[in-house]
Amino acid sequence: MTAQTETQPYSATEFGALYAEIQQFYARHMHLLDDGDADAWAAGFTEDASFSVPTLPAPVVGRAGLAAAVRRTAEALAEAGEQHRHWPGVFDVRPQKDGSVVVHSYTTVFASPLGGASRVHRVCTCTDVLVREGGRLLVKAREVARDDLR
Amino acid sequence: MTAQTETQPYSATEFGALYAEIQQFYARHMHLLDDGDADAWAAGFTEDASFSVPTLPAPVVGRAGLAAAVRRTAEALAEAGEQHRHWPGVFDVRPQKDGSVVVHSYTTVFASPLGGASRVHRVCTCTDVLVREGGRLLVKAREVARDDLR
Amino acid sequence: MTAQTETQPYSATEFGALYAEIQQFYARHMHLLDDGDADAWAAGFTEDASFSVPTLPAPVVGRAGLAAAVRRTAEALAEAGEQHRHWPGVFDVRPQKDGSVVVHSYTTVFASPLGGASRVHRVCTCTDVLVREGGRLLVKAREVARDDLR
Repeated sequence: MTAQTETQPYSATEFGALYAEIQQFYARHMHLLDDGDADAWAAGFTEDASFSVPTLPAPVVGRAGLAAAVRRTAEALAEAGEQHRHWPGVFDVRPQKDGSVVVHSYTTVFASPLGGASRVHRVCTCTDVLVREGGRLLVKAREVARDDLR
Repeated sequence: MTAQTETQPYSATEFGALYAEIQQFYARHMHLLDDGDADAWAAGFTEDASFSVPTLPAPVVGRAGLAAAVRRTAEALAEAGEQHRHWPGVFDVRPQKDGSVVVHSYTTVFASPLGGASRVHRVCTCTDVLVREGGRLLVKAREVARDDLR
Repeated sequence: MTAQTETQPYSATEFGALYAEIQQFYARHMHLLDDGDADAWAAGFTEDASFSVPTLPAPVVGRAGLAAAVRRTAEALAEAGEQHRHWPGVFDVRPQKDGSVVVHSYTTVFASPLGGASRVHRVCTCTDVLVREGGRLLVKAREVARDDLR
Protein backbone atom coordinates (compact mmCIF):
# COMPACT_ATOMS: atom_id res chain seq x y z
CA MET A 1 0.00 0.00 0.00
CA THR A 2 1.39 3.39 -0.93
CA ALA A 3 0.01 4.82 2.30
CA GLN A 4 2.77 2.97 4.12
CA THR A 5 5.43 5.06 2.39
CA GLU A 6 3.73 8.30 3.44
CA THR A 7 3.60 7.25 7.04
CA GLN A 8 5.75 8.65 9.83
CA PRO A 9 7.36 6.07 12.09
CA TYR A 10 4.95 5.77 15.01
CA SER A 11 5.34 3.36 17.86
CA ALA A 12 2.29 1.25 18.71
CA THR A 13 1.80 3.35 21.84
CA GLU A 14 2.05 6.65 19.95
CA PHE A 15 -0.36 5.41 17.31
CA GLY A 16 -2.78 4.30 20.04
CA ALA A 17 -2.67 7.73 21.65
CA LEU A 18 -3.21 9.44 18.29
CA TYR A 19 -6.06 7.11 17.36
CA ALA A 20 -7.86 7.84 20.64
CA GLU A 21 -7.26 11.58 20.29
CA ILE A 22 -8.79 11.47 16.81
CA GLN A 23 -11.84 9.51 17.99
CA GLN A 24 -12.33 11.98 20.84
CA PHE A 25 -11.94 14.90 18.42
CA TYR A 26 -14.64 13.56 16.09
CA ALA A 27 -16.95 12.68 18.96
CA ARG A 28 -16.98 16.18 20.43
CA HIS A 29 -17.04 17.69 16.93
CA MET A 30 -20.19 15.77 15.99
CA HIS A 31 -21.90 16.35 19.34
CA LEU A 32 -21.43 20.10 18.79
CA LEU A 33 -22.78 19.80 15.24
CA ASP A 34 -25.89 17.88 16.29
CA ASP A 35 -26.50 20.32 19.15
CA GLY A 36 -26.42 23.17 16.64
CA ASP A 37 -23.49 24.76 18.51
CA ALA A 38 -22.26 26.28 15.26
CA ASP A 39 -19.37 28.45 16.47
CA ALA A 40 -17.87 25.80 18.77
CA TRP A 41 -18.15 23.31 15.91
CA ALA A 42 -16.51 25.68 13.44
CA ALA A 43 -13.65 26.21 15.94
CA GLY A 44 -12.67 22.62 15.11
CA PHE A 45 -11.49 23.84 11.69
CA THR A 46 -8.47 25.96 10.82
CA GLU A 47 -9.23 29.61 9.97
CA ASP A 48 -8.72 28.88 6.26
CA ALA A 49 -10.32 25.42 6.20
CA SER A 50 -12.19 24.22 3.14
CA PHE A 51 -15.21 21.90 3.27
CA SER A 52 -16.36 20.29 0.08
CA VAL A 53 -19.73 18.53 -0.30
CA PRO A 54 -21.39 17.16 -3.42
CA THR A 55 -24.49 19.35 -3.06
CA LEU A 56 -22.59 22.66 -3.27
CA PRO A 57 -20.90 23.93 -6.45
CA ALA A 58 -17.80 25.16 -4.54
CA PRO A 59 -16.21 24.38 -1.18
CA VAL A 60 -17.21 26.42 1.87
CA VAL A 61 -14.07 28.19 3.10
CA GLY A 62 -13.42 29.60 6.57
CA ARG A 63 -15.00 29.28 9.99
CA ALA A 64 -17.61 32.02 9.54
CA GLY A 65 -19.05 30.40 6.45
CA LEU A 66 -19.00 26.97 8.03
CA ALA A 67 -20.78 28.20 11.16
CA ALA A 68 -23.40 30.00 9.07
CA ALA A 69 -24.16 26.82 7.14
CA VAL A 70 -24.63 24.86 10.37
CA ARG A 71 -26.89 27.54 11.83
CA ARG A 72 -29.12 27.42 8.75
CA THR A 73 -29.36 23.64 8.95
CA ALA A 74 -30.07 23.72 12.71
CA GLU A 75 -32.90 26.19 12.16
CA ALA A 76 -34.42 24.12 9.37
CA LEU A 77 -34.26 20.95 11.49
CA ALA A 78 -35.80 22.68 14.50
CA GLU A 79 -38.64 23.92 12.30
CA ALA A 80 -39.14 20.43 10.88
CA GLY A 81 -39.04 18.88 14.38
CA GLU A 82 -36.29 16.50 13.36
CA GLN A 83 -33.11 15.56 15.23
CA HIS A 84 -30.08 14.50 13.22
CA ARG A 85 -27.13 12.52 14.57
CA HIS A 86 -23.88 12.48 12.65
CA TRP A 87 -22.14 9.22 13.48
CA PRO A 88 -18.49 9.13 12.42
CA GLY A 89 -16.53 5.90 12.42
CA VAL A 90 -14.48 3.29 10.59
CA PHE A 91 -11.47 5.62 10.92
CA ASP A 92 -8.56 4.81 8.63
CA VAL A 93 -5.90 7.06 10.19
CA ARG A 94 -2.80 7.83 8.11
CA PRO A 95 -0.17 10.06 9.69
CA GLN A 96 1.78 12.00 7.04
CA LYS A 97 5.45 12.93 6.96
CA ASP A 98 4.63 16.64 7.29
CA GLY A 99 2.90 16.03 10.63
CA SER A 100 -0.63 16.23 9.26
CA VAL A 101 -2.97 13.25 9.50
CA VAL A 102 -5.24 12.09 6.70
CA VAL A 103 -8.37 10.40 8.04
CA HIS A 104 -10.64 8.38 5.77
CA SER A 105 -13.90 7.64 7.57
CA TYR A 106 -17.54 6.88 7.10
CA THR A 107 -20.33 9.03 8.51
CA THR A 108 -23.89 7.83 8.84
CA VAL A 109 -26.54 10.43 9.58
CA PHE A 110 -29.55 9.16 11.52
CA ALA A 111 -32.78 11.21 11.56
CA SER A 112 -35.53 11.11 14.18
CA PRO A 113 -38.71 13.06 13.69
CA LEU A 114 -40.36 14.00 16.97
CA GLY A 115 -42.85 11.23 17.73
CA GLY A 116 -41.92 9.28 14.61
CA ALA A 117 -39.65 6.42 13.52
CA SER A 118 -35.90 6.97 13.42
CA ARG A 119 -34.17 6.14 10.16
CA VAL A 120 -30.91 6.22 8.24
CA HIS A 121 -30.82 9.61 6.56
CA ARG A 122 -27.47 9.57 4.73
CA VAL A 123 -24.42 7.37 4.38
CA CYS A 124 -21.32 9.40 3.59
CA THR A 125 -17.59 9.01 3.27
CA CYS A 126 -15.34 11.70 4.66
CA THR A 127 -11.68 12.47 3.91
CA ASP A 128 -10.14 14.97 6.30
CA VAL A 129 -6.71 16.51 6.54
CA LEU A 130 -6.05 17.21 10.22
CA VAL A 131 -3.28 19.55 11.34
CA ARG A 132 -2.06 20.46 14.80
CA GLU A 133 -2.25 24.08 15.97
CA GLY A 134 -1.36 25.02 19.53
CA GLY A 135 -1.36 21.35 20.42
CA ARG A 136 -4.90 20.70 19.18
CA LEU A 137 -6.03 18.85 16.08
CA LEU A 138 -8.04 20.92 13.61
CA VAL A 139 -9.60 20.10 10.25
CA LYS A 140 -7.77 21.88 7.43
CA ALA A 141 -9.65 20.25 4.58
CA ARG A 142 -12.75 18.05 4.44
CA GLU A 143 -14.24 16.27 1.48
CA VAL A 144 -17.58 14.56 1.95
CA ALA A 145 -19.19 12.23 -0.58
CA ARG A 146 -22.68 10.74 -0.38
CA ASP A 147 -23.24 7.12 -1.26
CA ASP A 148 -26.59 7.88 -2.88
CA LEU A 149 -25.06 10.49 -5.22
CA ARG A 150 -22.07 8.63 -6.56
CA MET B 1 -15.49 24.77 26.99
CA THR B 2 -16.05 24.44 30.72
CA ALA B 3 -15.35 20.71 30.48
CA GLN B 4 -11.68 21.57 30.02
CA THR B 5 -11.51 23.01 33.52
CA GLU B 6 -12.99 19.84 35.01
CA THR B 7 -10.39 17.72 33.34
CA GLN B 8 -7.53 15.98 35.10
CA PRO B 9 -4.14 16.33 33.48
CA TYR B 10 -3.80 13.20 31.33
CA SER B 11 -0.89 12.49 29.05
CA ALA B 12 -1.76 11.50 25.49
CA THR B 13 -0.75 7.93 26.30
CA GLU B 14 -2.85 7.81 29.48
CA PHE B 15 -5.85 9.24 27.64
CA GLY B 16 -5.36 6.69 24.86
CA ALA B 17 -5.35 3.85 27.38
CA LEU B 18 -8.46 5.21 29.10
CA TYR B 19 -10.28 5.74 25.82
CA ALA B 20 -9.62 2.13 24.78
CA GLU B 21 -10.64 0.81 28.20
CA ILE B 22 -13.91 2.71 27.93
CA GLN B 23 -14.63 1.42 24.42
CA GLN B 24 -13.90 -2.13 25.59
CA PHE B 25 -16.15 -1.63 28.62
CA TYR B 26 -19.09 -0.48 26.49
CA ALA B 27 -18.53 -3.22 23.93
CA ARG B 28 -18.73 -6.04 26.44
CA HIS B 29 -21.53 -4.25 28.31
CA MET B 30 -23.69 -4.08 25.19
CA HIS B 31 -22.89 -7.61 24.06
CA LEU B 32 -24.13 -8.83 27.44
CA LEU B 33 -27.26 -6.70 27.13
CA ASP B 34 -28.09 -7.96 23.65
CA ASP B 35 -27.44 -11.56 24.71
CA GLY B 36 -29.95 -11.07 27.53
CA ASP B 37 -27.23 -11.89 30.10
CA ALA B 38 -28.97 -9.70 32.63
CA ASP B 39 -26.90 -10.33 35.76
CA ALA B 40 -23.52 -10.01 34.02
CA TRP B 41 -24.76 -6.80 32.40
CA ALA B 42 -25.99 -5.41 35.72
CA ALA B 43 -22.57 -6.18 37.25
CA GLY B 44 -21.28 -3.33 35.08
CA PHE B 45 -23.08 -0.89 37.39
CA THR B 46 -22.25 0.09 40.95
CA GLU B 47 -24.49 -1.44 43.63
CA ASP B 48 -26.32 1.89 44.05
CA ALA B 49 -26.35 2.91 40.37
CA SER B 50 -29.24 4.89 38.95
CA PHE B 51 -30.49 4.55 35.37
CA SER B 52 -32.84 7.16 34.03
CA VAL B 53 -34.83 6.74 30.82
CA PRO B 54 -37.57 8.97 29.38
CA THR B 55 -40.17 6.17 29.35
CA LEU B 56 -40.08 5.57 33.12
CA PRO B 57 -41.37 8.06 35.71
CA ALA B 58 -38.41 7.48 38.06
CA PRO B 59 -34.87 6.12 37.67
CA VAL B 60 -34.23 2.42 38.17
CA VAL B 61 -31.83 2.07 41.11
CA GLY B 62 -29.57 -0.86 41.94
CA ARG B 63 -28.36 -3.95 40.16
CA ALA B 64 -31.32 -6.19 40.98
CA GLY B 65 -33.81 -3.77 39.46
CA LEU B 66 -31.64 -3.22 36.42
CA ALA B 67 -31.23 -6.95 35.82
CA ALA B 68 -34.97 -7.51 36.20
CA ALA B 69 -35.72 -4.87 33.59
CA VAL B 70 -33.32 -6.48 31.13
CA ARG B 71 -34.79 -9.93 31.76
CA ARG B 72 -38.29 -8.63 31.00
CA THR B 73 -37.11 -7.01 27.76
CA ALA B 74 -35.18 -10.13 26.71
CA GLU B 75 -38.28 -12.26 27.22
CA ALA B 76 -40.47 -9.89 25.24
CA LEU B 77 -37.97 -9.81 22.37
CA ALA B 78 -37.65 -13.60 22.33
CA GLU B 79 -41.43 -13.90 22.17
CA ALA B 80 -41.57 -11.34 19.34
CA GLY B 81 -38.73 -13.13 17.48
CA GLU B 82 -36.74 -9.92 17.29
CA GLN B 83 -33.03 -9.38 17.96
CA HIS B 84 -31.90 -5.97 19.19
CA ARG B 85 -28.35 -4.61 18.96
CA HIS B 86 -27.34 -1.68 21.12
CA TRP B 87 -24.55 0.12 19.31
CA PRO B 88 -22.71 2.64 21.47
CA GLY B 89 -20.31 5.15 19.97
CA VAL B 90 -19.24 8.73 19.35
CA PHE B 91 -17.72 8.71 22.84
CA ASP B 92 -16.94 12.14 24.26
CA VAL B 93 -14.82 11.11 27.26
CA ARG B 94 -14.29 13.66 30.01
CA PRO B 95 -12.15 12.63 32.98
CA GLN B 96 -13.16 14.52 36.13
CA LYS B 97 -10.99 15.83 38.95
CA ASP B 98 -12.54 13.36 41.41
CA GLY B 99 -11.34 10.41 39.31
CA SER B 100 -14.73 9.68 37.77
CA VAL B 101 -15.23 9.89 34.03
CA VAL B 102 -18.24 11.48 32.36
CA VAL B 103 -18.98 9.89 28.99
CA HIS B 104 -21.37 11.50 26.53
CA SER B 105 -22.21 9.05 23.78
CA TYR B 106 -24.79 8.08 21.20
CA THR B 107 -26.49 4.70 21.11
CA THR B 108 -28.34 3.41 18.10
CA VAL B 109 -30.52 0.36 18.56
CA PHE B 110 -30.94 -1.83 15.49
CA ALA B 111 -33.78 -4.34 15.33
CA SER B 112 -33.93 -7.50 13.22
CA PRO B 113 -37.09 -9.60 13.11
CA LEU B 114 -36.39 -13.21 12.29
CA GLY B 115 -36.71 -13.54 8.53
CA GLY B 116 -37.48 -9.85 8.08
CA ALA B 117 -35.71 -6.61 7.24
CA SER B 118 -33.36 -5.06 9.81
CA ARG B 119 -34.02 -1.44 10.73
CA VAL B 120 -33.05 1.42 13.00
CA HIS B 121 -35.17 1.01 16.10
CA ARG B 122 -34.02 3.92 18.29
CA VAL B 123 -31.45 6.69 18.29
CA CYS B 124 -30.49 7.70 21.81
CA THR B 125 -28.00 9.83 23.64
CA CYS B 126 -26.40 8.53 26.82
CA THR B 127 -24.61 10.36 29.60
CA ASP B 128 -22.80 8.08 32.02
CA VAL B 129 -20.78 8.73 35.14
CA LEU B 130 -18.15 5.99 35.36
CA VAL B 131 -16.26 5.28 38.57
CA ARG B 132 -13.47 2.84 39.31
CA GLU B 133 -14.02 0.09 41.91
CA GLY B 134 -11.39 -2.57 42.48
CA GLY B 135 -9.61 -1.40 39.34
CA ARG B 136 -12.66 -1.81 37.09
CA LEU B 137 -14.86 0.86 35.55
CA LEU B 138 -18.53 0.73 36.58
CA VAL B 139 -21.51 2.90 35.70
CA LYS B 140 -22.65 4.93 38.70
CA ALA B 141 -25.29 6.97 36.88
CA ARG B 142 -26.80 6.73 33.42
CA GLU B 143 -29.18 9.11 31.71
CA VAL B 144 -30.62 8.05 28.37
CA ALA B 145 -32.64 10.33 26.10
CA ARG B 146 -34.43 9.30 22.91
CA ASP B 147 -34.21 11.50 19.83
CA ASP B 148 -37.82 10.78 18.89
CA LEU B 149 -39.12 11.90 22.31
CA ARG B 150 -37.34 15.23 22.69
CA MET C 1 -16.10 -14.58 32.97
CA THR C 2 -13.94 -17.37 31.60
CA ALA C 3 -12.45 -14.98 29.06
CA GLN C 4 -10.51 -13.37 31.90
CA THR C 5 -8.56 -16.57 32.47
CA GLU C 6 -7.57 -16.79 28.80
CA THR C 7 -6.23 -13.26 28.84
CA GLN C 8 -2.56 -12.35 28.68
CA PRO C 9 -1.39 -9.79 31.22
CA TYR C 10 -1.58 -6.51 29.31
CA SER C 11 -0.83 -3.13 30.81
CA ALA C 12 -3.45 -0.43 30.20
CA THR C 13 -1.07 1.21 27.74
CA GLU C 14 -0.42 -2.03 25.85
CA PHE C 15 -4.13 -2.78 25.69
CA GLY C 16 -4.79 0.77 24.42
CA ALA C 17 -2.22 0.31 21.65
CA LEU C 18 -3.69 -3.08 20.70
CA TYR C 19 -7.25 -1.75 20.74
CA ALA C 20 -6.32 1.11 18.40
CA GLU C 21 -4.38 -1.23 16.11
CA ILE C 22 -7.42 -3.47 15.86
CA GLN C 23 -9.77 -0.58 15.09
CA GLN C 24 -7.37 0.65 12.41
CA PHE C 25 -7.12 -2.86 11.00
CA TYR C 26 -10.89 -3.22 10.67
CA ALA C 27 -11.29 0.28 9.26
CA ARG C 28 -8.88 -0.26 6.39
CA HIS C 29 -10.17 -3.82 5.91
CA MET C 30 -13.75 -2.61 5.45
CA HIS C 31 -12.79 0.35 3.27
CA LEU C 32 -11.05 -2.11 0.94
CA LEU C 33 -14.10 -4.38 0.95
CA ASP C 34 -16.54 -1.58 0.14
CA ASP C 35 -14.24 -0.28 -2.60
CA GLY C 36 -14.28 -3.75 -4.14
CA ASP C 37 -10.48 -3.99 -3.79
CA ALA C 38 -10.74 -7.74 -3.48
CA ASP C 39 -7.07 -8.78 -3.43
CA ALA C 40 -5.98 -6.09 -0.94
CA TRP C 41 -8.92 -7.06 1.25
CA ALA C 42 -8.07 -10.77 1.05
CA ALA C 43 -4.47 -9.92 2.05
CA GLY C 44 -5.91 -9.14 5.49
CA PHE C 45 -6.44 -12.89 6.00
CA THR C 46 -3.86 -15.61 6.57
CA GLU C 47 -3.18 -17.84 3.58
CA ASP C 48 -5.24 -20.64 5.16
CA ALA C 49 -7.98 -18.47 6.67
CA SER C 50 -11.52 -19.73 6.93
CA PHE C 51 -14.59 -17.49 6.65
CA SER C 52 -17.92 -18.90 7.70
CA VAL C 53 -21.26 -17.25 6.86
CA PRO C 54 -24.79 -18.58 7.41
CA THR C 55 -25.70 -18.36 3.71
CA LEU C 56 -23.01 -20.80 2.55
CA PRO C 57 -23.02 -24.53 3.35
CA ALA C 58 -19.26 -24.59 4.07
CA PRO C 59 -16.63 -22.01 5.02
CA VAL C 60 -14.68 -20.24 2.30
CA VAL C 61 -11.00 -21.12 2.79
CA GLY C 62 -7.97 -19.24 1.53
CA ARG C 63 -7.28 -15.83 0.05
CA ALA C 64 -8.07 -16.71 -3.57
CA GLY C 65 -11.54 -17.94 -2.71
CA LEU C 66 -12.20 -14.96 -0.47
CA ALA C 67 -11.11 -12.49 -3.13
CA ALA C 68 -13.25 -14.22 -5.76
CA ALA C 69 -16.33 -13.95 -3.53
CA VAL C 70 -15.75 -10.23 -3.02
CA ARG C 71 -15.24 -9.67 -6.74
CA ARG C 72 -18.57 -11.37 -7.51
CA THR C 73 -20.37 -9.23 -4.92
CA ALA C 74 -18.72 -6.02 -6.16
CA GLU C 75 -19.83 -6.78 -9.71
CA ALA C 76 -23.40 -7.51 -8.64
CA LEU C 77 -23.58 -4.28 -6.62
CA ALA C 78 -22.16 -2.21 -9.48
CA GLU C 79 -24.76 -3.69 -11.80
CA ALA C 80 -27.52 -2.95 -9.29
CA GLY C 81 -26.20 0.62 -8.77
CA GLU C 82 -25.99 0.07 -5.03
CA GLN C 83 -23.18 1.01 -2.65
CA HIS C 84 -22.70 -1.05 0.50
CA ARG C 85 -20.83 0.08 3.61
CA HIS C 86 -19.68 -2.49 6.13
CA TRP C 87 -19.52 -0.76 9.49
CA PRO C 88 -17.64 -2.75 12.13
CA GLY C 89 -17.78 -1.76 15.78
CA VAL C 90 -18.59 -2.62 19.40
CA PHE C 91 -15.26 -4.47 19.55
CA ASP C 92 -14.91 -6.86 22.48
CA VAL C 93 -11.17 -7.57 22.27
CA ARG C 94 -9.85 -10.62 24.09
CA PRO C 95 -6.11 -11.30 23.87
CA GLN C 96 -5.37 -15.03 24.23
CA LYS C 97 -2.46 -16.72 25.94
CA ASP C 98 -1.13 -18.05 22.61
CA GLY C 99 -0.72 -14.47 21.29
CA SER C 100 -3.82 -14.55 19.12
CA VAL C 101 -6.68 -12.13 19.74
CA VAL C 102 -10.33 -13.08 19.65
CA VAL C 103 -12.53 -10.15 18.62
CA HIS C 104 -16.28 -10.25 19.06
CA SER C 105 -17.87 -7.38 17.15
CA TYR C 106 -21.00 -6.20 15.42
CA THR C 107 -21.14 -5.25 11.76
CA THR C 108 -23.96 -3.25 10.27
CA VAL C 109 -24.17 -3.08 6.49
CA PHE C 110 -25.77 0.07 5.09
CA ALA C 111 -27.01 0.13 1.50
CA SER C 112 -27.48 3.17 -0.73
CA PRO C 113 -29.05 2.83 -4.15
CA LEU C 114 -27.93 5.55 -6.54
CA GLY C 115 -30.48 8.35 -6.26
CA GLY C 116 -32.49 6.49 -3.61
CA ALA C 117 -32.86 6.30 0.16
CA SER C 118 -30.07 4.74 2.22
CA ARG C 119 -31.10 1.96 4.59
CA VAL C 120 -29.89 -0.68 7.01
CA HIS C 121 -29.20 -3.75 4.90
CA ARG C 122 -27.92 -6.27 7.47
CA VAL C 123 -27.04 -6.45 11.13
CA CYS C 124 -24.40 -9.09 11.81
CA THR C 125 -22.18 -10.36 14.57
CA CYS C 126 -18.61 -11.30 13.79
CA THR C 127 -16.16 -13.44 15.73
CA ASP C 128 -12.61 -13.25 14.44
CA VAL C 129 -9.41 -14.93 15.49
CA LEU C 130 -6.57 -12.53 14.70
CA VAL C 131 -2.96 -13.67 14.57
CA ARG C 132 0.23 -11.72 14.00
CA GLU C 133 2.42 -12.51 11.00
CA GLY C 134 5.46 -10.38 10.18
CA GLY C 135 4.28 -7.84 12.73
CA ARG C 136 0.84 -7.38 11.14
CA LEU C 137 -2.53 -8.61 12.36
CA LEU C 138 -4.35 -10.98 10.01
CA VAL C 139 -7.67 -12.79 10.27
CA LYS C 140 -7.14 -16.53 10.70
CA ALA C 141 -10.80 -17.41 11.21
CA ARG C 142 -14.03 -15.43 10.85
CA GLU C 143 -17.54 -16.47 11.76
CA VAL C 144 -20.36 -14.17 10.75
CA ALA C 145 -23.96 -14.53 11.90
CA ARG C 146 -26.93 -12.51 10.69
CA ASP C 147 -29.49 -11.24 13.18
CA ASP C 148 -32.35 -11.85 10.75
CA LEU C 149 -31.40 -15.52 10.27
CA ARG C 150 -30.98 -16.63 13.87
